[in-house]
Amino acid sequence: MSVLVVGSVALDSVETPFGKADEVLGGSGTFFSASACHQTPVQLVGVVGDDYPREKLQPLADRGVDLAGLETAAGASFRWRGRYRHDLNSAETLETHLGVFSNFRPKIPEAFRSAPYVFLANIDPRLQLEVLDQVERPRLVACDTMNFWIESRRPELLELLGRVDLITLNDAEARQLTERANLVQAARWILERGPKHVVIKKGEHGAFMFTKDTVFFAPAYPLESVFDPTGAGDAFAGGFMGYLARTDDLSEANLRRAVIYGSAMGSFAVEQFSIGGLMDVDAEKIRARVDEFRRLVAFDEELLA
Amino acid sequence: MSVLVVGSVALDSVETPFGKADEVLGGSGTFFSASACHQTPVQLVGVVGDDYPREKLQPLADRGVDLAGLETAAGASFRWRGRYRHDLNSAETLETHLGVFSNFRPKIPEAFRSAPYVFLANIDPRLQLEVLDQVERPRLVACDTMNFWIESRRPELLELLGRVDLITLNDAEARQLTERANLVQAARWILERGPKHVVIKKGEHGAFMFTKDTVFFAPAYPLESVFDPTGAGDAFAGGFMGYLARTDDLSEANLRRAVIYGSAMGSFAVEQFSIGGLMDVDAEKIRARVDEFRRLVAFDEELLA
Repeated sequence: MSVLVVGSVALDSVETPFGKADEVLGGSGTFFSASACHQTPVQLVGVVGDDYPREKLQPLADRGVDLAGLETAAGASFRWRGRYRHDLNSAETLETHLGVFSNFRPKIPEAFRSAPYVFLANIDPRLQLEVLDQVERPRLVACDTMNFWIESRRPELLELLGRVDLITLNDAEARQLTERANLVQAARWILERGPKHVVIKKGEHGAFMFTKDTVFFAPAYPLESVFDPTGAGDAFAGGFMGYLARTDDLSEANLRRAVIYGSAMGSFAVEQFSIGGLMDVDAEKIRARVDEFRRLVAFDEELLA
Repeated sequence: MSVLVVGSVALDSVETPFGKADEVLGGSGTFFSASACHQTPVQLVGVVGDDYPREKLQPLADRGVDLAGLETAAGASFRWRGRYRHDLNSAETLETHLGVFSNFRPKIPEAFRSAPYVFLANIDPRLQLEVLDQVERPRLVACDTMNFWIESRRPELLELLGRVDLITLNDAEARQLTERANLVQAARWILERGPKHVVIKKGEHGAFMFTKDTVFFAPAYPLESVFDPTGAGDAFAGGFMGYLARTDDLSEANLRRAVIYGSAMGSFAVEQFSIGGLMDVDAEKIRARVDEFRRLVAFDEELLA
């Protein structure tokens, strides 16, 4: 089963305490694709400028990312420049140049419209809704968002909530969207507005998945060195959606496994700049990391007195 | 098997967004005892002033906390006044009056000296060392500490590390003690200085237990309403040590179960002011909460493709 992702394809320039990278592959669509392609074929829809080094996307194409929906428009590519301080917890944005992305209107190629799994990465909710108008009854639609859209596109975002099965967002965004400090209450608020599943990402503190009746928690993998946190959330989403698409099973048990795959991919993403950490892995490494997650939380309940 | 705890017995005045409490039972020794007593007999060593409402400790005595080591000294009891803002993440200390606690020198009663499990709650490392000079080869000694002692008693704290089997501390304290931002590196730094186990508490983000070769993670229970975080860390330690003392099994598997019991007791502690949440539970409620932890992190690894 393939997964369709609509998101940004950018050039990132990043400084961390451990080094810097200039004009490397970035963007939510890129990180998602580099993560999901280890599980399942990916169809990427987005836009780049005519200055984009498209040849650098060839490794993604080689791994099954279909770039037929990635337009090239006249103008400059989306560029982001950011910096992480010592604690690596939050990016400081130094520059954002939307370039051709500011006029982006997603056009889903005919061949992509029947994709059974759809991920609406963090773009304008108006565009996320336009994507939904173009696809044909997917089995599962998930979306991401960010503080900027919560602030500036609230009505459209609420409309979107009514049309997706699952939303991923971070803890600060969940609090901002719902105006509730408590994450359990925030999750309930969102669940009442449409999605059957809410995944709240807490970065280095792991991720919750809430449904009306259940809550699941996956820790972040305790890495000895986190190199660059950029893209971890999109890599999480890619591992999550990729696993769901590959297994095509929407049971609670399988969604939990998908969260673990997402967490594993997030942990690889932060080990290198750009998509380096994601491109360096294979099925065996992913399986081994998933197994480390099992050991990380395992306790033998049967012996509990 | 009984557990000996040496710590503070105080009167707390606390404001949270949900209410306020004046001069209620507080202190690390009190929270620890109220938590551990559900698992095993507790021997509490500490000091209160002659103004302390000792009769309010009777419910603890009724549940098996031996108060023979709790001296009453002439003078005022240790009082702490603090406030939690909206996010409940950190206490703002408004007043601290050490009172008779400032001259406290722990005297371990003869009958307590052979306690097999010893917890040195957060007091001056010099006093923690004095306790160790008075006890007879316990099976396991654990200690807690805080930023103030890391700053002002570093040599004594390092000496203490060489004499304990396990230390519990929060993430900020671990970073301060080790001067390492990364918790995996911080844990290794501590493990190299004596303890075989390091438990790093992250409050609402759960707790890690590190050994030389393993890492275990337990989430905090996702409560819909956290009422008052005061004492959660000591309640965690009480549940952890109480479970170890009851089961008297120092295997890795059992230490993991102890972390879950600690997390469960921490979650009860924050549901009410003072020790109210801890005194309201019984074995059945604890077992049910532990089972919720199991469900919270459970994923079916065998089906992982």
